[in-house]
Amino acid sequence: MRTWPIIVAVLALSSLSREQEIAPPPGIEAKQALRLMPWPAGIELQAGSGPMVIDSSFSVLLPDHADHRLEKAAEIFLNDLRRHTGMLALDFHLSDRAPQTGTVLALASDRPAKQVQELGEDESYALKVTTSRAQLSAPTTLGIIRGLATFLQLVAITPQGFAVPSVNIKDQPRFPWRGLLVDSSRHFMPLEVIKRNLDGMAAVKLNVFHWHLSDYQGFRLESRRFPKLQELGSDGFYYTQDEVREIVQYAADRGIRVVPEFDMPGHSTSWFVGYPELASAPGPYSLERRWGVFDPAMDPSRESTYRFLDQFIGEVAKLFPDAFFHIGGDEVNGKQWDANPKIHEFMRAHGLNNNADLQAYFNTRLEKIVAKHGKVMEGWDEILRPDLPKNIVIQSWRGQQSLADAVRQGYRGLLSSGYYLDLMSPAAAHYAVDPLAGGAAGLPDADKKKILGGEACMWAEFVSPENVDSRIWPRLAAIAERLWSPEKVTDQESMYERLERINHWLDAYGLTHNTNYPLMLQRIGGSADASPLRVLTDIVEPSKGYSRSALSQEEPTAVTPLNRLVDAARPESATARRFSTLVEMLVSGRLKPGTEREIRDLLAEWKQNDEKVRPIAETSLLAADAIPLSESLATLASTGLEALDYLDRGERAPEAWKSRQLASVEQAFQPKSQLLVMVAPAIQKLVQVSAGEKPSELSIPKTAR
Amino acid sequence: MRTWPIIVAVLALSSLSREQEIAPPPGIEAKQALRLMPWPAGIELQAGSGPMVIDSSFSVLLPDHADHRLEKAAEIFLNDLRRHTGMLALDFHLSDRAPQTGTVLALASDRPAKQVQELGEDESYALKVTTSRAQLSAPTTLGIIRGLATFLQLVAITPQGFAVPSVNIKDQPRFPWRGLLVDSSRHFMPLEVIKRNLDGMAAVKLNVFHWHLSDYQGFRLESRRFPKLQELGSDGFYYTQDEVREIVQYAADRGIRVVPEFDMPGHSTSWFVGYPELASAPGPYSLERRWGVFDPAMDPSRESTYRFLDQFIGEVAKLFPDAFFHIGGDEVNGKQWDANPKIHEFMRAHGLNNNADLQAYFNTRLEKIVAKHGKVMEGWDEILRPDLPKNIVIQSWRGQQSLADAVRQGYRGLLSSGYYLDLMSPAAAHYAVDPLAGGAAGLPDADKKKILGGEACMWAEFVSPENVDSRIWPRLAAIAERLWSPEKVTDQESMYERLERINHWLDAYGLTHNTNYPLMLQRIGGSADASPLRVLTDIVEPSKGYSRSALSQEEPTAVTPLNRLVDAARPESATARRFSTLVEMLVSGRLKPGTEREIRDLLAEWKQNDEKVRPIAETSLLAADAIPLSESLATLASTGLEALDYLDRGERAPEAWKSRQLASVEQAFQPKSQLLVMVAPAIQKLVQVSAGEKPSELSIPKTAR
Repeated sequence: MRTWPIIVAVLALSSLSREQEIAPPPGIEAKQALRLMPWPAGIELQAGSGPMVIDSSFSVLLPDHADHRLEKAAEIFLNDLRRHTGMLALDFHLSDRAPQTGTVLALASDRPAKQVQELGEDESYALKVTTSRAQLSAPTTLGIIRGLATFLQLVAITPQGFAVPSVNIKDQPRFPWRGLLVDSSRHFMPLEVIKRNLDGMAAVKLNVFHWHLSDYQGFRLESRRFPKLQELGSDGFYYTQDEVREIVQYAADRGIRVVPEFDMPGHSTSWFVGYPELASAPGPYSLERRWGVFDPAMDPSRESTYRFLDQFIGEVAKLFPDAFFHIGGDEVNGKQWDANPKIHEFMRAHGLNNNADLQAYFNTRLEKIVAKHGKVMEGWDEILRPDLPKNIVIQSWRGQQSLADAVRQGYRGLLSSGYYLDLMSPAAAHYAVDPLAGGAAGLPDADKKKILGGEACMWAEFVSPENVDSRIWPRLAAIAERLWSPEKVTDQESMYERLERINHWLDAYGLTHNTNYPLMLQRIGGSADASPLRVLTDIVEPSKGYSRSALSQEEPTAVTPLNRLVDAARPESATARRFSTLVEMLVSGRLKPGTEREIRDLLAEWKQNDEKVRPIAETSLLAADAIPLSESLATLASTGLEALDYLDRGERAPEAWKSRQLASVEQAFQPKSQLLVMVAPAIQKLVQVSAGEKPSELSIPKTAR
Repeated sequence: MRTWPIIVAVLALSSLSREQEIAPPPGIEAKQALRLMPWPAGIELQAGSGPMVIDSSFSVLLPDHADHRLEKAAEIFLNDLRRHTGMLALDFHLSDRAPQTGTVLALASDRPAKQVQELGEDESYALKVTTSRAQLSAPTTLGIIRGLATFLQLVAITPQGFAVPSVNIKDQPRFPWRGLLVDSSRHFMPLEVIKRNLDGMAAVKLNVFHWHLSDYQGFRLESRRFPKLQELGSDGFYYTQDEVREIVQYAADRGIRVVPEFDMPGHSTSWFVGYPELASAPGPYSLERRWGVFDPAMDPSRESTYRFLDQFIGEVAKLFPDAFFHIGGDEVNGKQWDANPKIHEFMRAHGLNNNADLQAYFNTRLEKIVAKHGKVMEGWDEILRPDLPKNIVIQSWRGQQSLADAVRQGYRGLLSSGYYLDLMSPAAAHYAVDPLAGGAAGLPDADKKKILGGEACMWAEFVSPENVDSRIWPRLAAIAERLWSPEKVTDQESMYERLERINHWLDAYGLTHNTNYPLMLQRIGGSADASPLRVLTDIVEPSKGYSRSALSQEEPTAVTPLNRLVDAARPESATARRFSTLVEMLVSGRLKPGTEREIRDLLAEWKQNDEKVRPIAETSLLAADAIPLSESLATLASTGLEALDYLDRGERAPEAWKSRQLASVEQAFQPKSQLLVMVAPAIQKLVQVSAGEKPSELSIPKTAR
């Protein structure tokens, strides 16, 4: 007879009750099965009403005199529907006349959307689905685009074929600015990478693509006025103006604004390769290959700088129709300014007391240029100075407090702090960050309205076209939900359940976050069967935050191959999360039949895996990264099994054993090959509980944060 | 103690000795580990010499005054190298000056290749790799392209990183015409499908892309002279002339000729939608949606037909620089001709006695037009008539005998019979087909030279852009080896071993034959975990030959969704092949340690899988296809386990049991959901051997051939 559940149950009483945390969110219970993300503002299932079947008889009904964008939206929807259902050759009916037979999705919008999509345009929609007919209504085409995204997520395979459940949805976004920044400078991202990610963005109702086009390491836009920008500043990897127009149109068709960023006056080495006269120190310059913050900065003291920028921004403003223009403005270390006597002289002459004043002067001049070309300036926290006009937008990498400060001064802002995808945080961490919480929580309602939303950031030091999708997806969908759904939609368990399904659903867009994972492992393993590598890699995660460089043997640069285990591993291990959940159930006395079996099976697999990994690691330099991790995993698995044995025997594990194991678990959790074995915290809990202790959370080691 | 191996060993003596069949081919033993396909004509490993490492210091050395194509070939090679190694950002050195450090691949060709690639151009090359330097020499750029493909296949991950073994290779193709036909008419294949398959073709040294651009179901080329061809004949799915030029250039850069096919006078309904006056019966016509052979045919009796074709071919000839132009010419059923009195009259007036004569007349006229526009005519077997000039080329879907007949009459020919990828034959079956065997074996050497090679054909009734790669790859690599490698390279085991590795290696080109398989299964399974579906689908194969339509509940057409289990399943199951090999070892008494364990593990997994498949199948119409197959698999697995039990006990299985099981195995092998459970033949052998019988081959059921 097993007695240990009693011990565990007692322990559970004294531990923090997690019951409440993981209970389903209010109102979602019955609808849990729906694969919807972001969760709509209002949704009701029509009880008793059958689903609407989507087969070859399905058609989309356009209103009379549909505007061109609505028709385009319907075409994109039908194409996406073909991809999601695999009915690629189906010529679904698209018409402004009701069909004789078959199911129908009828679209109705009161007015066309703006010619160029605007911030704050109405995105609301209402969707009612019955067995034979669905009605999607919205004030504008933009709402129709959002409603079509919802409809598409509702299409699921059923015993009757593909079908949409009978639902009644009324939905609108919580924030008007919901974006993704893609850094095309540090690693160039080809057009198809951008397009498939725009598809994914539209699928989760994001509406701003923030395109980071220049930085120390590369200038990625073709300028016809200043061709040396791309000719000398890009290694040949840049977007032509035609390609930019293609992307802008592609995004617009999906209800996504494109905001370009040209980072100035710092982060600008790539400009200076072709135009050293813009810099604050004499050249020549070459493209930066390292990562970090560097000295080169534009010279704010020379009129020629502003003349150049006037012409450049004039050219770029025509390419990007959006009202906003991002000037970066972050991380100017001022060293080039300090070293330049002419700049000192200029500062004295203009009463500028320090570099911050000098940058403010630059920004003020820049703002006038940006405004002259019809754009509103946007920039990172650092640009905030009271002398700038109040219509500019502050993007905060510093956090809600910084944002609240901006808003109190009358500016509009959006949050990116907490949404950095390159830091390898779990989806739950991003999901828990609310633009209106923390330092912004106490703002009056009128000020809160000035917080426009947020943007996830995909900084590109450690991503290539091969693995960038795996850093963006599926976690971006959780951020998208935070920015679209009502404030009260915060349940983690529901989020993860839906995220897992959205994760695979997104494959239909050609996103490679799932498909490239086995391919990269296969390459690492060479001709060997890669499954043991996969068992291991399934439970590791890259070290967090900015720790990777410090953990690398050689300083990584722009040409460091991103083909290692750390590049293949996912930012968040679903298997480790599952294991933690199982162990949590066990240690909190909420065991279900099979829970212990599942834990034991996983531990047994991990314990045996090491001897399978070893021969692979011996034949491949890349797979050799797996050795220390695999050893750690085997050790952890043995420890876990021993702990379970104590629990099964109803025997309290001896102190000495416990201390030894806790030390060993901590050691196993140290980063190796820039990776973390993410099952260690759960193993620690097993050890603690088997020794009659209250389980505690093992934090990520300092070196890996 | 186990006694049954003795029984089995005795049985093995009386069975056909397979030992010889599966012995390694002469000379390949030591080199077996190399992932090379096609196998080179001559290869020696440099014993004692270490591999050449490929890292960031690797560079390609061009000869002085390298021609543009050579430079382009080197660039493509380096890009492919980046993709294969995942070193995407590496700016490998490409120069005509020897580098100071690092490993080098030096290229040297005696002369540039022809401006437009010609049939029979020299493709030979010599590649010598030492620890620090590789030398690739060839008479022309074309040989360099082939040698680079070899070098790329040799790059493998090792304990030192990516490296190429020290080898000495002298290589040239056996046949000058090695092609793949892609049917873009029955299902349109977007540009990226064509491009990634051209990448794959170049990787296995194929040199002809035969583009089947028109048929009953669609006309896929933009004609500016006759725009209604694509406007009314394509459902909007066609290639623009710019896209065609892009593909032709893309292919040329990879040493691949592009031969367009416009099928006439039959297979031509799609022409008649826009231009009914070309047909032999009055219109109107609409695009054919069904599969099969249909009546519409061009009217050979009207001069206007030839004027049209003259202008059309004149336009097309400019787009496709290749010397050959394929006019199809197959499967004219003659019904429209029979029904047209004016055509009868014309035949009488010209002394044409039957439809074959009429088609010959048409072909003779057509050949003059083709020749007038500078092209050599090519067509299927049916066009062969002694009155056509001897320079035309016959492509044979009928077989070596038909080919030999053509050659005896002085024509050149190439083989496609035996290389139809849509028939779902195993790679070994294609591999065993030699253009110079069978009916062509007795030809004198001079005539044999007129057999130019062969072409694999990817007819597109049952493929979509989503699964077409999985029908082409990896089997095409085996055909490519047949057409390139020396006649004596015929060992199946070696072929399969290398094919399995090439299979995954090809993923780097973005080919989706591996990646789309789990995605399609995931869609079929809906939100459920798809792994039980995968266990099942891993051992089934689509029914063979032309049996699919007859096995379908509804007649499949051009708009039938190709999203079912049969569309996801691979043409050849590697798992079933593995299982057959294991059982073969067991029944022939060549057991190794672990063989029986592996068999038992597989059988146990299959037996238990049925109860996991069922709940998935109940929630998805698409997954319901799995039910009868899963039942059959479970039954087969139980039978197999019982047979093993008899063998383990050293007990001869009773007659009654044996008869019951053999009947049950046969039933389980009947096609279900258009699929075959491919482990049935091996289970039959287990049953037979357990009953003391000689094992025999179970053939594919008649309905599934």
